[in-house]
Amino acid sequence: MRIDVLTLFPELFPGPLGESIIGRASERNLLELGTVNIRNFALDARGTVDDKPYGGGPGMLMMAEPVVSAIESVKKENSLVILTSPRGRVFNQSLAKELANYEHLVIVTGHYEGVDERAIELAVDMEISLGDFVLTSGVLPAMIITDAVARLLPGVLGDDASSVDESHSGNLLEYPQYTRPTEFRGLRVPEVLLSGDHGKIAKFRQKQRESLTRERRPDMWENFMSQTEKEV
Amino acid sequence: MRIDVLTLFPELFPGPLGESIIGRASERNLLELGTVNIRNFALDARGTVDDKPYGGGPGMLMMAEPVVSAIESVKKENSLVILTSPRGRVFNQSLAKELANYEHLVIVTGHYEGVDERAIELAVDMEISLGDFVLTSGVLPAMIITDAVARLLPGVLGDDASSVDESHSGNLLEYPQYTRPTEFRGLRVPEVLLSGDHGKIAKFRQKQRESLTRERRPDMWENFMSQTEKEV
Repeated sequence: MRIDVLTLFPELFPGPLGESIIGRASERNLLELGTVNIRNFALDARGTVDDKPYGGGPGMLMMAEPVVSAIESVKKENSLVILTSPRGRVFNQSLAKELANYEHLVIVTGHYEGVDERAIELAVDMEISLGDFVLTSGVLPAMIITDAVARLLPGVLGDDASSVDESHSGNLLEYPQYTRPTEFRGLRVPEVLLSGDHGKIAKFRQKQRESLTRERRPDMWENFMSQTEKEV
Repeated sequence: MRIDVLTLFPELFPGPLGESIIGRASERNLLELGTVNIRNFALDARGTVDDKPYGGGPGMLMMAEPVVSAIESVKKENSLVILTSPRGRVFNQSLAKELANYEHLVIVTGHYEGVDERAIELAVDMEISLGDFVLTSGVLPAMIITDAVARLLPGVLGDDASSVDESHSGNLLEYPQYTRPTEFRGLRVPEVLLSGDHGKIAKFRQKQRESLTRERRPDMWENFMSQTEKEV
């Protein structure tokens, strides 16, 4: 897979993405990560890419033409063009899986107060939001999308880690985990986890996942229960 | 405010956070950003901080003692200790506002397959999840939390930008925006935005916010409608 990030701050990439799994994916050519500086497509010699919104309002907008030109400079027939935007589809693991099927993702990072709507209409396939919070720019969301997608690519994770992904995707929160020592500041590891009885351990963990999910994420629990009913 | 990030990758900070608003907040002493390398609190000379989970399962866990010791090295009376974790409260703008009231945040970034539950029980005040997706580590979530919180601190944003935040927090998606030129590749800016009639423009934008939200985010729309009813 290739991911091109179109941004005003290309020097921030790969940044945190260079570490660990994603860095190794790049080294093994499972992922090519490129950047394009949108400012290279500015309309004047001063590099202007933003202007005031028509109709008034605070802040500056990214102009349509530099954004569309930057997209057209990398887009191929099978590319999916994404814009990070608070108005977009909320990012989650099933969307990450959907994106992992593409050969080429183009991620445009929003800056300033947004992007001229016509750029979105003409050149963007999908707007994605990371959640209902306000950030300085789309740089960190682009990194998050890249990280979540890249680790789903075949060969990027070892067998062990991929099975963990499956459990995370299972519509329930993870069970509590413990490692050595068996006692730490008076707190002991639950005895069943030391028993070696794999059946009992699996049952114990499943119960913990269910009670944690019910308590902390009623929305997730409701989905899980309605799916379980369908399967029965 | 001070934010200390406890991580195995302190060299990744400030990274993307050094740019733009957050960088300026640090320069003007509105935000102090520190990092602590959890590996400095390893139990052996090799720097071991992880071990296999009791009861079996893939991957490695962060051990309780290095995590708790790292937290205790920076925690003060008024600190809030956060762990980035898929099991946590889902991050949103109202949680960002809540966090912005603290003098000191300690953010522990999860690594490997998680953290020994006893470290959470003993030393963590709040687990926060960015959303329902799987990432390589908690480094990017810690950056996102820092960015979203820091821009809410008094004096960090100019007046213009802060008013934008308010509109983002208004439980509706943003209206489409346009800047020069009035025509781009055959697409014109809606005439009303060029009219100079501020009353009409405000009405037009409000309608667009409502229809966009209804169409794209039925969950958000439902909340908005139930709040509106209460106010009436």
